[in-house]
Amino acid sequence: MQKLQEFQGIFEKYLSENSFERPPGELYQPVDYILSLGGKRLRPVLVLTGCHLFHDEVTPALPAAMAIEVFHNFSLVHDDIMDAAPLRRGQPTVHTRFDTNTAILSGDVMLIYTYDYLCQLKDRQKIGQIISVFNKVAIKVCEGQQYDMNFEKQADVSIPDYLKMIELKTAVLIAGSLKIGAMIGGAGQEDAEHLWEFGRNIGIAFQLQDDYLDTFGDPEKFGKKIGGDIAQHKKTFLILKALEVATPEVRHKLQTYLALPESEEQLKIQKVTAILTALNLPQLIKEKRDAYRQEAYQHLSEVSIPEEAKQILYEMSEMLIQREV
Amino acid sequence: MQKLQEFQGIFEKYLSENSFERPPGELYQPVDYILSLGGKRLRPVLVLTGCHLFHDEVTPALPAAMAIEVFHNFSLVHDDIMDAAPLRRGQPTVHTRFDTNTAILSGDVMLIYTYDYLCQLKDRQKIGQIISVFNKVAIKVCEGQQYDMNFEKQADVSIPDYLKMIELKTAVLIAGSLKIGAMIGGAGQEDAEHLWEFGRNIGIAFQLQDDYLDTFGDPEKFGKKIGGDIAQHKKTFLILKALEVATPEVRHKLQTYLALPESEEQLKIQKVTAILTALNLPQLIKEKRDAYRQEAYQHLSEVSIPEEAKQILYEMSEMLIQREV
Repeated sequence: MQKLQEFQGIFEKYLSENSFERPPGELYQPVDYILSLGGKRLRPVLVLTGCHLFHDEVTPALPAAMAIEVFHNFSLVHDDIMDAAPLRRGQPTVHTRFDTNTAILSGDVMLIYTYDYLCQLKDRQKIGQIISVFNKVAIKVCEGQQYDMNFEKQADVSIPDYLKMIELKTAVLIAGSLKIGAMIGGAGQEDAEHLWEFGRNIGIAFQLQDDYLDTFGDPEKFGKKIGGDIAQHKKTFLILKALEVATPEVRHKLQTYLALPESEEQLKIQKVTAILTALNLPQLIKEKRDAYRQEAYQHLSEVSIPEEAKQILYEMSEMLIQREV
Repeated sequence: MQKLQEFQGIFEKYLSENSFERPPGELYQPVDYILSLGGKRLRPVLVLTGCHLFHDEVTPALPAAMAIEVFHNFSLVHDDIMDAAPLRRGQPTVHTRFDTNTAILSGDVMLIYTYDYLCQLKDRQKIGQIISVFNKVAIKVCEGQQYDMNFEKQADVSIPDYLKMIELKTAVLIAGSLKIGAMIGGAGQEDAEHLWEFGRNIGIAFQLQDDYLDTFGDPEKFGKKIGGDIAQHKKTFLILKALEVATPEVRHKLQTYLALPESEEQLKIQKVTAILTALNLPQLIKEKRDAYRQEAYQHLSEVSIPEEAKQILYEMSEMLIQREV
């Protein structure tokens, strides 16, 4: 994982050289704040990796890596308002630390700066093409967030609906990061498309693993409260699949426990987790996740570069799926 | 004004052919809603006009005109949340008609579609250049909104501060519309720059006229409540200039009336208006407005196209400043 750490270092350096310290401070301090909360820098590292697969240098991809990281953080700032989330990476969210109006407007300016960074790409010929790819991604991310909000009020969410939502909300940005990096590195259209499909499938696998860990993970390692999805009655793969495979009797029990009020959160998490375990969900979700991983690796195998160059993506995928990155 | 109406018609047709009717409806219906509230389509018409000054056809500029109109409406949707405004063009604002989360996310997707339309420009070579100009504009619009919000809490706003704020929040989008249209039409850099300066100065004149009409306008023609700025204790040019030219005694009276509570709105508007009138503010603001108009016309005179081709911009300026468009 030497390369991965190297890319993280290169990106962190670029980020620190690109501070948003400028007037008006009320607008830009929240931008530096959210960007400073860290995180794994997964998406910008994927941009650099995508470039590196086809090009010795990663420097040409740095503005795009920055664009993707700024966009990702914009989406966190606005999603946190919509979800009324108090904390992000253990720190107050922007609308909590500052206020909601600030979070709206600072998020807006971050979205504009995303395009400003994309316009800084040295290869002027490619800018239009890359922005077009990015637009498709960004639109899907918004649509994914809308479906996620819709599902809260919607009784009949199907498993394909759910998988489509996580594809839009999470996976396409991973796919797009890799594809845009590859385009900057000089990949041909077919290779870029296979990398998109690789990223899309790994992104879905990543989210399924997140769903798994939210209920069955080690609280020490996971970093979030275990059982949060159950407490919030989120319609994740675990719940939707359980409702599908359960007998009518068990399904009724599951629905009863899921409907328990907030005051009985502990009981709710405990009972629902027990049913999910009895229904073999830990195994079923792993199988689903592995099917997406396999599909991802199939696409990676089709990319026309030497196998040893792909090693970094295989390693990143495993770390990603284990959520160790 | 035949050309103006022709351009409005061309744009309305393009707009109606570019509906946002697509899933998820929860995300896109608000977009069609805000775009259908009408308005003068001033900015897209300026894009088409800018193009027409240098090119027979306006069709190549239509995607940019759409981009600018979508961006303008995005900014209205988000500003209305921040200002807690219940009405826009006499209709419920998006966050009132739908809800705040919807208004945030639909606004976001509108901002992304702005770039999607800019990427539809046929002349692929120019896309990067035009997006760079647009980014500068969009960033300034956000900064202007931030300064506007800051001024509400800030005791010592100066007249230059205020003029800078309206330049950022209002004038640069007018300047950018014209410049981007001109670039698409094939204008040279110098002409494009003069058109920018023309638009920037006319935009400030336009906002000063808006300030004037908000206090001294004909309620029938203005379309908004007269005295709204006074009621909200907005630090517009009228108030800031009055505080500057008043004797200490009158200044004290003015500040006392401005501090009156909401329950005494009628008295407040009446007393403040009387002081502004006595201080000759209607004349002073018109002089300031006309200085910007003169500066604008100076720049227009330097644009290297036949004088008769500029006629449409002179006419639009007058209508704009009279707020009849």
